[in-house]
Amino acid sequence: MQKASLTILGCGSAMPTRKNFPSSQLLEIRDKQFLIDCGEGAQIRMGQLGVKVNRLGHIFISHLHGDHCFGLIGLISTFGMLNRTAELHIHAQPDLEKLLRPQLLYFCTDLSFSVIFHSINPRKNELIYEDRSIQVFSIPLKHRVPCCGFLFEEKPRDRHIIREMIDFYHIPTWRIPKIKQGEDFETEEGEIIPNTLLTRPSELPKRFAYCSDTAYSEKIIPIIEGVDCLYHEATFMEDELVRSKNTEHSTARQAGLIARKAHVKKLIIGHYSARYNNQLELLNEAKAEFENTVLGEDLTVYEI
Amino acid sequence: MQKASLTILGCGSAMPTRKNFPSSQLLEIRDKQFLIDCGEGAQIRMGQLGVKVNRLGHIFISHLHGDHCFGLIGLISTFGMLNRTAELHIHAQPDLEKLLRPQLLYFCTDLSFSVIFHSINPRKNELIYEDRSIQVFSIPLKHRVPCCGFLFEEKPRDRHIIREMIDFYHIPTWRIPKIKQGEDFETEEGEIIPNTLLTRPSELPKRFAYCSDTAYSEKIIPIIEGVDCLYHEATFMEDELVRSKNTEHSTARQAGLIARKAHVKKLIIGHYSARYNNQLELLNEAKAEFENTVLGEDLTVYEI
Repeated sequence: MQKASLTILGCGSAMPTRKNFPSSQLLEIRDKQFLIDCGEGAQIRMGQLGVKVNRLGHIFISHLHGDHCFGLIGLISTFGMLNRTAELHIHAQPDLEKLLRPQLLYFCTDLSFSVIFHSINPRKNELIYEDRSIQVFSIPLKHRVPCCGFLFEEKPRDRHIIREMIDFYHIPTWRIPKIKQGEDFETEEGEIIPNTLLTRPSELPKRFAYCSDTAYSEKIIPIIEGVDCLYHEATFMEDELVRSKNTEHSTARQAGLIARKAHVKKLIIGHYSARYNNQLELLNEAKAEFENTVLGEDLTVYEI
Repeated sequence: MQKASLTILGCGSAMPTRKNFPSSQLLEIRDKQFLIDCGEGAQIRMGQLGVKVNRLGHIFISHLHGDHCFGLIGLISTFGMLNRTAELHIHAQPDLEKLLRPQLLYFCTDLSFSVIFHSINPRKNELIYEDRSIQVFSIPLKHRVPCCGFLFEEKPRDRHIIREMIDFYHIPTWRIPKIKQGEDFETEEGEIIPNTLLTRPSELPKRFAYCSDTAYSEKIIPIIEGVDCLYHEATFMEDELVRSKNTEHSTARQAGLIARKAHVKKLIIGHYSARYNNQLELLNEAKAEFENTVLGEDLTVYEI
C-alpha cells in the first residue's frame, strides 16, 4: 500500500529559533508532493534533508504573514538555477502575486519555467485544487489577517479485483476497469454477479488537514471531521490565553480540544512561540485533551 | 586591546547546502556591528549562534543577487517583532529600496523603527560610511551585475599617554586630549617636548575587506593593499576555470593570488559552489598561492 507522509520543514512561529524554522511542510501523497506554506529557509531545510522535489507542482500559502511565505522567492530562484521546466503553481491570496512578481522579474530573469498564481478566497470552504487522485479544499480560519487552512483528500482508489473470480466467470479484460470502479458483471446467461464477489475494497482514502494560523474555532470541526491527521497550530500554552486571544492564535489545549471534538485520528501540533524552550509542556497540554497528539518537529517525517 | 571579529553566518553561493547558507557575515569592530550581505536565513544563523545584534545599525549589500539579500525582509520583520527602536540603515544599490519598500509596507506595518536606504554607486571606490571610529569604502568588483565589495577601516586610535612623563612636566589635564592625538607640549619656559616622549603609539588601525562576488580583478589590489583580513570569494577551483570566467566568479587559486599580490595579512575564502563536497581542496588550492589562508565556514568567528 502506498503511504502518505508529511515532512515538517519548519514548525516555528514568527521568530525562528535554534530548533524551529518558520512554517513550511511537504506533503507526499499519491506520488505527488505539495508544499504547504513556505517560510524563510524552507529550501535550506529541504537541502538539509536531501529531499528532492521533482514531483512538487503546487504550493499552498495559508496567509500573507512573512513567516509563511518569505521562503518562496529563494525556493523559486533555486528552481531556476536547477533548470526546472515544469510549471509551478502557487495557490494563495491574490496580494501574493502583486508582491512576488516584481521580485521574480528582477531576481529570476529567464526563469526556465512558469510560475502560475491561483487566487484563493480564504473565507470560503471550497475545492481549490483537483487532479486524478487528490482534492484540496480551503478551510476558513480565524486569524488577524485573512487566512485559510487546507484539507487534502485522496479520491477513492479502485477496488482490488479478486483474480480467481475474474477467471472463474471468464470476465474479459476490457471489463476490468469498470469492475474496479464498482460495477457488477452480467454473464452471457444474464446472471448478475455482484461486484462484492469480484473485488475487495481498496484502502480508505487518506485525509490530512492543515490549520495554521488560527484562534480556537469550532467552525472548522465539520470540515476536518475524522481526518487521518490534523496539523493544528499550538502557538501558546494556557498560561498565555489572553495573548493567544489577542493575537488570534491557539493554545496547545485548544488544539487538542479541536482534535477531540473533530474525532481526528492523529494530531500534530506546531507553530510554537519562541518563548517555550521545553516544547514537551505544549505536548502534554494538548495530550490532556487528545491522547494521540504528536509534537511537530523540524526535519521530521510523519506518516499520515 | 579591543578585538575586531568577523562572524560568518553564511558562506555558500547561490544554492544553499547542508553546510552553507547564502552569503552573510557580521563584522564586530569598535563596539559596533555591521552586517555585510544578508542572504536567506541570516537571521536564523544569528539565532543559532545566539548573537544579539543590539549594536547593529548598518547593513551593506554588495549586489542584488538573491543569495546576498533575500534574508533582509525576514530580519527586518523580526526586528519589528522585537520592538527595535534604533534606525536601521541599508547601504545598497538603489533598486533594492524599490524592491523592498513594497514588502516592508505590506508585511511590516507599524514598524517600531525607521529603515533608511543609502544609495551606493558600485562602480566607484569612495567613502560610503563614516562615524567616529570607522570608515567604510566601496570597492568596485567585476561581476555579471553591478557589484562592490567593502573596505572597513578603523580610524587611528588616540596614542597612549605615558603617565610619568605627563606628571614630570606638570601637563594640565585639559591638554591631554590633544596630546593623545599627537600634539607636542610647550612648557612655560618655552621648551618644546616632542609628543613621542609623552606618548606611546596606539594599536595600528584594523582594516578588513570583503570582496564577493567577483571575477579575478587586479584593480582591487591598490584598494585592499595590506589589509589585516581579506574575505575573497572562491566559488570554484581551477578545474572550473571556464565556468568561473563565464559566471564572473573567482577560483580559489585566484583568491590566493590576489591575497599574495595585495600583501594582505590573512585571507578567508568563501562563497563556495555547491558542487564541492570537500572544501579542503579549495583551501589547499588557495594556500598554494597564499599560505595564510583560512577556510570560511558558517557559524564561525574569525579574529581580524
